[in-house]
Amino acid sequence: MEEKITKTIVQGYFKKLIDNLHVDVAIAGAGPSGLVAAYDLAKAGKKVAIFERKLAPGGGTWGGGMLFNEVVVMEDSLDILRDLSISYKDAGDGYVSIDSVEFASGLTFKAVQAGAVIFNSVSVTDIVFRQNTVSGVVILWTTVERLGMHVDPLVITAKAVLDGTGHPSEIVNLAVKKAGIRIDTETGDIMGEKPMWVESGEASTVENTKRLCPGLYASGMAANNVSGGFRMGPIFGGMLMSGRKIAKIILKDLQ
Amino acid sequence: MEEKITKTIVQGYFKKLIDNLHVDVAIAGAGPSGLVAAYDLAKAGKKVAIFERKLAPGGGTWGGGMLFNEVVVMEDSLDILRDLSISYKDAGDGYVSIDSVEFASGLTFKAVQAGAVIFNSVSVTDIVFRQNTVSGVVILWTTVERLGMHVDPLVITAKAVLDGTGHPSEIVNLAVKKAGIRIDTETGDIMGEKPMWVESGEASTVENTKRLCPGLYASGMAANNVSGGFRMGPIFGGMLMSGRKIAKIILKDLQ
Amino acid sequence: MEEKITKTIVQGYFKKLIDNLHVDVAIAGAGPSGLVAAYDLAKAGKKVAIFERKLAPGGGTWGGGMLFNEVVVMEDSLDILRDLSISYKDAGDGYVSIDSVEFASGLTFKAVQAGAVIFNSVSVTDIVFRQNTVSGVVILWTTVERLGMHVDPLVITAKAVLDGTGHPSEIVNLAVKKAGIRIDTETGDIMGEKPMWVESGEASTVENTKRLCPGLYASGMAANNVSGGFRMGPIFGGMLMSGRKIAKIILKDLQ
Amino acid sequence: MEEKITKTIVQGYFKKLIDNLHVDVAIAGAGPSGLVAAYDLAKAGKKVAIFERKLAPGGGTWGGGMLFNEVVVMEDSLDILRDLSISYKDAGDGYVSIDSVEFASGLTFKAVQAGAVIFNSVSVTDIVFRQNTVSGVVILWTTVERLGMHVDPLVITAKAVLDGTGHPSEIVNLAVKKAGIRIDTETGDIMGEKPMWVESGEASTVENTKRLCPGLYASGMAANNVSGGFRMGPIFGGMLMSGRKIAKIILKDLQ
Amino acid sequence: MEEKITKTIVQGYFKKLIDNLHVDVAIAGAGPSGLVAAYDLAKAGKKVAIFERKLAPGGGTWGGGMLFNEVVVMEDSLDILRDLSISYKDAGDGYVSIDSVEFASGLTFKAVQAGAVIFNSVSVTDIVFRQNTVSGVVILWTTVERLGMHVDPLVITAKAVLDGTGHPSEIVNLAVKKAGIRIDTETGDIMGEKPMWVESGEASTVENTKRLCPGLYASGMAANNVSGGFRMGPIFGGMLMSGRKIAKIILKDLQ
Amino acid sequence: MEEKITKTIVQGYFKKLIDNLHVDVAIAGAGPSGLVAAYDLAKAGKKVAIFERKLAPGGGTWGGGMLFNEVVVMEDSLDILRDLSISYKDAGDGYVSIDSVEFASGLTFKAVQAGAVIFNSVSVTDIVFRQNTVSGVVILWTTVERLGMHVDPLVITAKAVLDGTGHPSEIVNLAVKKAGIRIDTETGDIMGEKPMWVESGEASTVENTKRLCPGLYASGMAANNVSGGFRMGPIFGGMLMSGRKIAKIILKDLQ
Amino acid sequence: MEEKITKTIVQGYFKKLIDNLHVDVAIAGAGPSGLVAAYDLAKAGKKVAIFERKLAPGGGTWGGGMLFNEVVVMEDSLDILRDLSISYKDAGDGYVSIDSVEFASGLTFKAVQAGAVIFNSVSVTDIVFRQNTVSGVVILWTTVERLGMHVDPLVITAKAVLDGTGHPSEIVNLAVKKAGIRIDTETGDIMGEKPMWVESGEASTVENTKRLCPGLYASGMAANNVSGGFRMGPIFGGMLMSGRKIAKIILKDLQ
Amino acid sequence: MEEKITKTIVQGYFKKLIDNLHVDVAIAGAGPSGLVAAYDLAKAGKKVAIFERKLAPGGGTWGGGMLFNEVVVMEDSLDILRDLSISYKDAGDGYVSIDSVEFASGLTFKAVQAGAVIFNSVSVTDIVFRQNTVSGVVILWTTVERLGMHVDPLVITAKAVLDGTGHPSEIVNLAVKKAGIRIDTETGDIMGEKPMWVESGEASTVENTKRLCPGLYASGMAANNVSGGFRMGPIFGGMLMSGRKIAKIILKDLQ
Repeated sequence: MEEKITKTIVQGYFKKLIDNLHVDVAIAGAGPSGLVAAYDLAKAGKKVAIFERKLAPGGGTWGGGMLFNEVVVMEDSLDILRDLSISYKDAGDGYVSIDSVEFASGLTFKAVQAGAVIFNSVSVTDIVFRQNTVSGVVILWTTVERLGMHVDPLVITAKAVLDGTGHPSEIVNLAVKKAGIRIDTETGDIMGEKPMWVESGEASTVENTKRLCPGLYASGMAANNVSGGFRMGPIFGGMLMSGRKIAKIILKDLQ
Repeated sequence: MEEKITKTIVQGYFKKLIDNLHVDVAIAGAGPSGLVAAYDLAKAGKKVAIFERKLAPGGGTWGGGMLFNEVVVMEDSLDILRDLSISYKDAGDGYVSIDSVEFASGLTFKAVQAGAVIFNSVSVTDIVFRQNTVSGVVILWTTVERLGMHVDPLVITAKAVLDGTGHPSEIVNLAVKKAGIRIDTETGDIMGEKPMWVESGEASTVENTKRLCPGLYASGMAANNVSGGFRMGPIFGGMLMSGRKIAKIILKDLQ
Repeated sequence: MEEKITKTIVQGYFKKLIDNLHVDVAIAGAGPSGLVAAYDLAKAGKKVAIFERKLAPGGGTWGGGMLFNEVVVMEDSLDILRDLSISYKDAGDGYVSIDSVEFASGLTFKAVQAGAVIFNSVSVTDIVFRQNTVSGVVILWTTVERLGMHVDPLVITAKAVLDGTGHPSEIVNLAVKKAGIRIDTETGDIMGEKPMWVESGEASTVENTKRLCPGLYASGMAANNVSGGFRMGPIFGGMLMSGRKIAKIILKDLQ
Repeated sequence: MEEKITKTIVQGYFKKLIDNLHVDVAIAGAGPSGLVAAYDLAKAGKKVAIFERKLAPGGGTWGGGMLFNEVVVMEDSLDILRDLSISYKDAGDGYVSIDSVEFASGLTFKAVQAGAVIFNSVSVTDIVFRQNTVSGVVILWTTVERLGMHVDPLVITAKAVLDGTGHPSEIVNLAVKKAGIRIDTETGDIMGEKPMWVESGEASTVENTKRLCPGLYASGMAANNVSGGFRMGPIFGGMLMSGRKIAKIILKDLQ
Repeated sequence: MEEKITKTIVQGYFKKLIDNLHVDVAIAGAGPSGLVAAYDLAKAGKKVAIFERKLAPGGGTWGGGMLFNEVVVMEDSLDILRDLSISYKDAGDGYVSIDSVEFASGLTFKAVQAGAVIFNSVSVTDIVFRQNTVSGVVILWTTVERLGMHVDPLVITAKAVLDGTGHPSEIVNLAVKKAGIRIDTETGDIMGEKPMWVESGEASTVENTKRLCPGLYASGMAANNVSGGFRMGPIFGGMLMSGRKIAKIILKDLQ
Repeated sequence: MEEKITKTIVQGYFKKLIDNLHVDVAIAGAGPSGLVAAYDLAKAGKKVAIFERKLAPGGGTWGGGMLFNEVVVMEDSLDILRDLSISYKDAGDGYVSIDSVEFASGLTFKAVQAGAVIFNSVSVTDIVFRQNTVSGVVILWTTVERLGMHVDPLVITAKAVLDGTGHPSEIVNLAVKKAGIRIDTETGDIMGEKPMWVESGEASTVENTKRLCPGLYASGMAANNVSGGFRMGPIFGGMLMSGRKIAKIILKDLQ
Repeated sequence: MEEKITKTIVQGYFKKLIDNLHVDVAIAGAGPSGLVAAYDLAKAGKKVAIFERKLAPGGGTWGGGMLFNEVVVMEDSLDILRDLSISYKDAGDGYVSIDSVEFASGLTFKAVQAGAVIFNSVSVTDIVFRQNTVSGVVILWTTVERLGMHVDPLVITAKAVLDGTGHPSEIVNLAVKKAGIRIDTETGDIMGEKPMWVESGEASTVENTKRLCPGLYASGMAANNVSGGFRMGPIFGGMLMSGRKIAKIILKDLQ
Repeated sequence: MEEKITKTIVQGYFKKLIDNLHVDVAIAGAGPSGLVAAYDLAKAGKKVAIFERKLAPGGGTWGGGMLFNEVVVMEDSLDILRDLSISYKDAGDGYVSIDSVEFASGLTFKAVQAGAVIFNSVSVTDIVFRQNTVSGVVILWTTVERLGMHVDPLVITAKAVLDGTGHPSEIVNLAVKKAGIRIDTETGDIMGEKPMWVESGEASTVENTKRLCPGLYASGMAANNVSGGFRMGPIFGGMLMSGRKIAKIILKDLQ
């Protein structure tokens, strides 16, 4: 019986991994915008793989604001919540409040059920860059990365790579610093994030969600950091909407 | 706008906390058996609060077996998976295979939607013990516990306390060592876990799921450690069923 | 009884927090100049909240000089000591010596009794910056910050923000680096601290205590770092006086 | 000027240290019961020195309950709060609520102003035990202790030694384990703490505050751990009262 | 090309792992005695898998004595060195000296070329114990174990389990402590290691290399720790010979 | 007997060290290209010493790709594998797959047997640079380096120094930054590594393997980092061939 | 010139090491009593090697009392100070005060000049025990021990082994726990140290300095811990005298 | 008796500290050149205080080369060794070899006996800089610095400050970076150290030993780093001679 269980797990995992060595969309980081993008892309029939450093997807949403485990979104993203069957309470003035544990687990559960595959405890450590196009991600067990062990990574090739790492914008940083790519911002370079101004941040987050160069896309907070907008604060509507927006852009590009 | 968001989060959280200072069932640890128990108890109308050290509930299930992110259950727990809308693949010989990320997020999402409240990043550090009855749990931010800061805890009183911490059996240990309680095992004391023998482990896990003393219940792996059965291995059916079993026992006791 | 105690604490804290989501003056760091400023501002009827990383306010004063727990001030700040009922011993040549434990606890005790609210174990991690004005602080449990957990912060809005972090000048740094603000120094930028020269340092600390840009004020050591003066050494009179001076400036601006 | 400041600090500290090499009462740990005892003993004219590991006295009170910075006491200790000019809010049912920062800083400030000397960042690492009597404490910089450096300690001799370390009961442990002393408990040995039961804990804390053997006294939580009573929870009245009680006992013994 | 390389690695590893879920002999720890046993067993046609915590097999031999990278064996194990083509220098009195890097790499290289499979960076964390027989090992990535992550292990079943962990005797310890097995020593229990006495140690190491209970074997230093013999010192002949001896014993038992 | 063993080890090591204080070629880092170079150079009769930080040579090859312990090379390096008796499996399309443990141990074993001396657990911390020529390496126990102890190093002089440290290019960095050497690249300076593009990386790795300045050579990944080529990915053929190539270049220069 | 320097150091060290593989007296720990014993034994013509974990000998004396860098001895050990040319200041009542830096460096300097060899940064990790006699020490670089590396030790054989490790009594502990030796104390076992009582401690330290079993001697604080006397406090006369006493005992035994 | 010992230590230290609040020469770092300078300056009647981070002075000399505890000097510094009574062995070609433990302890012992005062476990964290002259050092317990505690330093004023910190040149760095001082090097700034070239390094170390600006002097390795010379290697003659040279320069300036 022990051997049967182990064989079932090993075979199930290796089939999943072999099936995802080449995907339509590789997403680095399973935060809210990446999960919404994955949900929409998988629903549209694309092969989507998410690589997430932590064991649990959900990004920075589990802890709500300052560990007070509620999150807030504005009414313009209620359709996304309804699509994912996540419940909310009206907070007046166009705001709704959501239990942050329901929010994070719901985003994750629905993305996987839609067909996206999440490889957790896996880090994206570099990008593949062929003929001036971002063509995949270089991955490693996060455990190996954290322990600083000298072990080579593997490669996932993809038609589109989405930077869903949020604040650190890790993938865009790699593209700019290692590949010398000029990205689609005012300066052609990463512009950094301003202090907090929620209204301005919410707006610019969605606005700056776009393709940055051939093969590379950014959504959610990342777009903000990259394009130099204001910080958004503990409100997640902009991220949900930027996830949905980037999914539309990628779907169009992959046609 | 910043103030509105903060106020919504703070008020939402404090209402949730004040509402749960006294509950029907306090569960320490949000692993699979605790989440199933919480789901069933909340569905039955009980007020249930789970306290979980990590930011993300799900216990040891996120990483599947050895980070190969699949888990296995046997056919006898398929009704629980169906109740929670978690999908599975047939693996032959009475086994099914489940994506571990879907498993962990689904258990969490469904427990919360059923009405259970999860306080994440919160540790249970002691029990309340009045007149020979376990009457609640003593809680602290896990961050404070991890940093070894000298800060007093708070108290949640409960009609029933469920030890869902799995292997370490933390709550039962506290009851035996600090309160000197004689528990319902062969020796009246914690008997420790044997090496791995899956068949025997699966069976005894469910069998030993029971009330250990007035006010204190154990389910899942914890029952195993406490009662001296064999270790179960990377198969979660026993835990799901022990969660459902303990929920029935508690419901009967609370009538 | 356990429930009553917990409810009293939770409700008391919640009321205090909700009452301070918008304040007249938000002070980052509870060192001596910040505490004196808070004392004076609260005495003048302003709503003042201090956010302090450590559990205990008092900044670098508890340890005296090199853990020899005495501190020194000059005679020109004796009126402040007298206002706060802190005792001192004459040391000749215009200096007085104070037990550093009495100094730190007295500054804290008197500021709170004057009406200032201190949120301890809370870090200021960013500023709110709207329409070219510093309009608040972004806060997080220090425990979460120290453990590097991925959790969103909350926001406190304020009419005036006082950087009381001393040497690191954290808030002014954020303003200059993230918001690109030009501050009121010789160069418009942070000028750094020179080596130690006590006479010169004492003088320039008070002199450079001022409003640096709309909404942002600096006092005590911070002003020194920012304006490029000499380091002051283990003498706290300049800090006390700069606290009193900045309180006057803020009071005038808030009229 | 730099030399004058340094000389003032060094001379002030060394006078304080030399004056306290032999004291009436040496207290290990500056928590609430130790500070109240120090206040009462100093007011009664005794020479009292407190040795505290942290830079800031106040013990576990700064963080209130779970960092919600309020503490609770019952009405029977209001006279102590009034003696120390600490303000409180009525919480109904015989409870009052106190800002924990005011509580900790007030206890410290008033103890020092009453004449007690606090040596902060100093650890008690052993006791002096001559002719079956506890006759002093062995001290070391806490920094040296934390870094595990191989440096010899110094000695403070005292007519009475009060263990104010709370939960860990460090001094009583040393007395029992290293000196083999039989203490005044039911078993003559340390009996450990039970789980939480506030009513019972509050009562037994005060009851068990006593002389444990010639020269050694325990107050506050320590008495509880030593005598095997229930844990008290986040309520500090018992500690205040045990501080006042032990002061009376010591005063009588020192006559 | 990136995808081809990744696919080749993943498929090669997956085949190797699936092929070794059930083996004839599972060896915990790739030190010199385990590697010699693996070499002999594989040469004899048995399916052998070694699980080694480090990335590099070789155990404690790489560093020679005190990082002076030479090792010593006596003439009675020269046939093993010759079988593995490891070169040596005569040191007189029946001793030979070997470059420790050649020794460790040669033992590893020859064991693998003989057909043994080494799973490196994999820890054995428990044993499988069915019907009073040691029937396999429970394995986990060492990275996961080192980081203390909460992830379930997998299982390798085996006809024979060889404890090759040397000094710590990890597997025998598990058998005795968790399974309560009575082993074949003078006391039936682990007897511990004596101080160093090389002659006595060398002799008893080989002598005590044996089957300890059904399914469980020990070789090299482990046998020594278990049976209470003297410590051997920095000489590896006894380990080589104990590896060869245990291979013979296992081969006989597996017939 | 204990003394004889210790004396044999100490004398064996001391002779090896004294014999290698001046060598033909000093290699920093025992990765695959350095080991192949050492093998070829030693076969050609040169005195070669390798200094390796880890206890086990083999560089990043032990863990295969992402701990899946297989490595891949292309058919053009099969002659090197055959020279070293390392076995491989055909993977189609011109690729072969090799067990990574056999690969790493075989490269090490064969290099030592060819006559190269490996000093393991020894770091190269600086270079010797006399009259514009790299003339040796400065070495220290890696243990001392890791613990940050203040201990002076020793010096090995060499006719040629080969940087085999791979990605970090430590030796070339020292040459450029501390000695201000202009190296043989397009810019005369270190140009950094691009993202991953395997075909391009494999080619440029071999191409850029060359003498960088008098006395200093680079092979394997280092040449890549230094010359600004694309990253190679988890394929080791280029490294093997660059090792062989640099050996030829050095042999020619040393004539 | 670099090669000459390195060769001189390597040859000098290896000659010293080879010369000391067998010694008359091996001392573990270079504290004050060990250094005095080494001084006297070397003066008497014995071959003495000291093994010390730290880079700098001197034990706990460098920091004086609580980093106040003075130490105290009583008049009865002035002859030892005079023998070693260490200066002192009269402190009245039969006490003298010594600069602790002069004390530690002088003890070390004079022991080495008398002919004792100190191997610093070397740990004693076990003893050699042949035919019921302690016959040597097992040594390892302290760096290797601290990093927990898996590297074998070497052996120094000796006619007498002196435990000079002070408080931890490491060597005596090994003898009792690993070799099961019955030592010359009241109980035949280690009896532990009592709290501080200087007079009693000073006396018993010297009194209990003796041979504990064949081949094993203890001096200084170690004798105290082993025999159950009182702790001595920050006074070093007893240690100096116990060093001189044990030297006499060993000299007599070695005749 | 305990009180007498403590009082003697405290008074002895206090007198030493008060006596050295203003000195002729303050030396940061007790390496070989600083100790020789201190020896010569104290012999010439100057008041000299050395501040050293470690408990034991001696700098990097204790470990010899790579823990092989011998050091080398050339014949031109034999007079210094003879002055300090440090013994040496002739190594041919004008080199002598010295036991590194004797070297480090002898340098320290002789400097203190000459009258220099060493404050060990004390860090220099800043300089005093008045009217364009380096006028003292800012000191703190090293323990406080290492633990990152927020505690103010004290000040030692001096007629001359000597940077004896060796490689890091900490004091010169402070002078250049914080005070903006232009120092007496080719560029007026710190020029960094070149790789190792012993002949050139030895020569330039002595040559560059000089006054760098009013009040600030550098000797030993520091001069090398500052002036951009070659690194010296594990030979200490240059340092000894630079210590003697700078003593002469300072003596002349102080006249």
